[in-house]
Amino acid sequence: MNKVEPRTLPGFMELYPNEQIVFNNIKKVIEETYQSYGFYPLDTPVIESSDVLLAKAGGETEKQIYRFTKGDNDLSLRFDLTVPLAKYVAKRYNELTFPFKRYQIGKVYRGERPQKGRFREFYQCDIDVIGDESLSIMFDAEMPSIIYDIFKKLNIGDFVIRINNRKVLGGFFEYLELTDKITDILRIIDKLEKIGTDKVISLLEELSIPKDKIDKIINFINVKGTNNEKIKSLKDMNINNDNFITGLNELETVINTMKLMEINEDNFEIDLTIARGLDYYTGTVYETILKDYPGIGSVCSGGRYDDLAGFYTDKKLPGVGISIGLTRLFDQLLDNNIININEASITDMLIIPFCEDYEYIFKVYNTLKKNNIKVDICYMDKGFKQKMKYANKINAKYVILIGEDEIKENVISLKNMVTGEQEKLTIEELLERKL
Amino acid sequence: MNKVEPRTLPGFMELYPNEQIVFNNIKKVIEETYQSYGFYPLDTPVIESSDVLLAKAGGETEKQIYRFTKGDNDLSLRFDLTVPLAKYVAKRYNELTFPFKRYQIGKVYRGERPQKGRFREFYQCDIDVIGDESLSIMFDAEMPSIIYDIFKKLNIGDFVIRINNRKVLGGFFEYLELTDKITDILRIIDKLEKIGTDKVISLLEELSIPKDKIDKIINFINVKGTNNEKIKSLKDMNINNDNFITGLNELETVINTMKLMEINEDNFEIDLTIARGLDYYTGTVYETILKDYPGIGSVCSGGRYDDLAGFYTDKKLPGVGISIGLTRLFDQLLDNNIININEASITDMLIIPFCEDYEYIFKVYNTLKKNNIKVDICYMDKGFKQKMKYANKINAKYVILIGEDEIKENVISLKNMVTGEQEKLTIEELLERKL
Repeated sequence: MNKVEPRTLPGFMELYPNEQIVFNNIKKVIEETYQSYGFYPLDTPVIESSDVLLAKAGGETEKQIYRFTKGDNDLSLRFDLTVPLAKYVAKRYNELTFPFKRYQIGKVYRGERPQKGRFREFYQCDIDVIGDESLSIMFDAEMPSIIYDIFKKLNIGDFVIRINNRKVLGGFFEYLELTDKITDILRIIDKLEKIGTDKVISLLEELSIPKDKIDKIINFINVKGTNNEKIKSLKDMNINNDNFITGLNELETVINTMKLMEINEDNFEIDLTIARGLDYYTGTVYETILKDYPGIGSVCSGGRYDDLAGFYTDKKLPGVGISIGLTRLFDQLLDNNIININEASITDMLIIPFCEDYEYIFKVYNTLKKNNIKVDICYMDKGFKQKMKYANKINAKYVILIGEDEIKENVISLKNMVTGEQEKLTIEELLERKL
Repeated sequence: MNKVEPRTLPGFMELYPNEQIVFNNIKKVIEETYQSYGFYPLDTPVIESSDVLLAKAGGETEKQIYRFTKGDNDLSLRFDLTVPLAKYVAKRYNELTFPFKRYQIGKVYRGERPQKGRFREFYQCDIDVIGDESLSIMFDAEMPSIIYDIFKKLNIGDFVIRINNRKVLGGFFEYLELTDKITDILRIIDKLEKIGTDKVISLLEELSIPKDKIDKIINFINVKGTNNEKIKSLKDMNINNDNFITGLNELETVINTMKLMEINEDNFEIDLTIARGLDYYTGTVYETILKDYPGIGSVCSGGRYDDLAGFYTDKKLPGVGISIGLTRLFDQLLDNNIININEASITDMLIIPFCEDYEYIFKVYNTLKKNNIKVDICYMDKGFKQKMKYANKINAKYVILIGEDEIKENVISLKNMVTGEQEKLTIEELLERKL
């Protein structure tokens, strides 16, 4: 028979078993942390009607959509988890309880040109809180607490959560009467770290911005010190603009609340240069950087928006949310050797039987299982060497050997797979070890 | 602005938050049980190249596929998790360790006509063990142990796992020299429960089967008693056919091993009428029936097969596996009121602040969180009634009220949301309650 070559499409992540264990562990930490903050799970379809999914889309996004027909239906695969959330909340507005806290972890699809670090199918791990007409600023502080919790638990090195407020940025440029140039200015100041202050100044000059205003911009983005010192410096600027003042108060509340939530000040900082999606966010914005790997870019971002579902409903639904692009993050963690996949294991103890007397073997197995030990039995019609090779390959920490001798003596032989040590123990003694 | 109606496509399950909690709890029980038996997680793409995915498909299945092009690529959405497993194992044969135990829980897609209980997007929860050339019969006993564990933990009523062996069935009909009519005969005897013995006989007569053979068939499918009595009756038939004898030995090993695995005999029975996918399974086969709801049909099925990946490789890869159709199962559990979604909750204790002194409020919050209590804070600029309504809607078991009085006295007011009782406690006293 002609064989088909078993291939996986480029741009689609498909992991080895030990990699998948580590990937799932990370996913589990994220999910359990989201839940621990009172977020409801949500699971929307991957396929939606194209008119629903693309109500808002356009430009680059629309080109990347997987869109097709089935029967008479014009269908598309979801490209993020925000549009499905907007649809869900607008559709069930009357049945939901607000503020509505939901998390969703699922695959989304974008037909991008496949290249290193870019995926066509990737996991997003999102949380959002949606308010009905209004939403407390306290949620803006809860988001970075959740980021903090997750990245502490993941134990993948030091990190910093950068926080800004779009109203502070917007208000500042309103005050300078440079609102029409804000997109260009933000693009330039975003490069500050990379290109330095002098180059930023010359680029701003190219935009025909007067020198006194450029000085103020440089002064603004160079605000230094602790978070509270930054707030104070910004207040001291005496900028008489409502937007700026509101944003500054919000930023102060967020910072102070985070401290009350016992978040280490080493792990978050006000960064006036970050803006995130310009057309969407309206208040607090976040980025998260792994300090030892800044090149990876932000590993968890998000912010506050005024209008979740304007394309579906007249209800005003403000929200705040964050997202972790798990597939890309995992790929980067692997690439940079930040995570160790070599010791990943699903089985702690492997029972290797040397005889067919399964009554005793299952007595041991059942007892260990009842004590919540991750135990498995090696069913193989092969020799000792092959069985030990199997135990090694699945990264079992211990092997339990059971042959006729062990059964006669009512013991098991325990082999430590790291040290190679082997000893005979009763089941009770084995349990007492709490391995 | 013109609004798009926020719709979800028919045939796609999208749950309310409290339903989703219960759905996820069931999924979690399944996943954790799969893991506890040493199965590796696997996560393959939803989209595959059509030639890879449809290497084996044909007929009804192929018509239901979501197939489309993107750029030059002919793509399809996976319609089960078995074909992706076959692809995975064939592709990575040299890197995998056999026997390879994997589970996969994910969505699959079939463009069926939407009707009650039929879904176009649905979860399958699969486990399989794949051997290289051969695979121990012990795994055939492990599968029903896993089914048993899961359905015990799910606590959705009494159930029975029906077990048969295709070799016993096939060997028996070889012995009767009725192999050419086996499909028709199996279709008829499958209806035994519904139509009774007399009707089965008359249908068999219509197939021009001689009376003495019909007697033997009726005798065979009416084998009664305990599992061991059934094995004995089958042995006593003295059927001189290799297939039959091999199958009977396998069946006996499976039954005896299940007893050693401490599976209650009330929960499994040999059923000679079940066959499952005729063209695929070659040995042990399983079905699982909820005793109080036989109309739901099998909620977990599977079996042994000889050749997982023949379309991709010449390697002989026998396997045994089971699958739970979670979306359909959940739908049926909801419909039959077998599960209770009304008390589902993500938050056990809700803190309702009555003042702005967040220092004390967060002291309480942080302490409860560190003690692994599912606690949340109600951030709402609304009155007491609205906040209590929110606590009710999210099914919080307790509400913790904190106002100026509580702060002054260094206590909290705890309100039991079931009894309505309210009392003042210190944080230490609250923790001692172990609520």
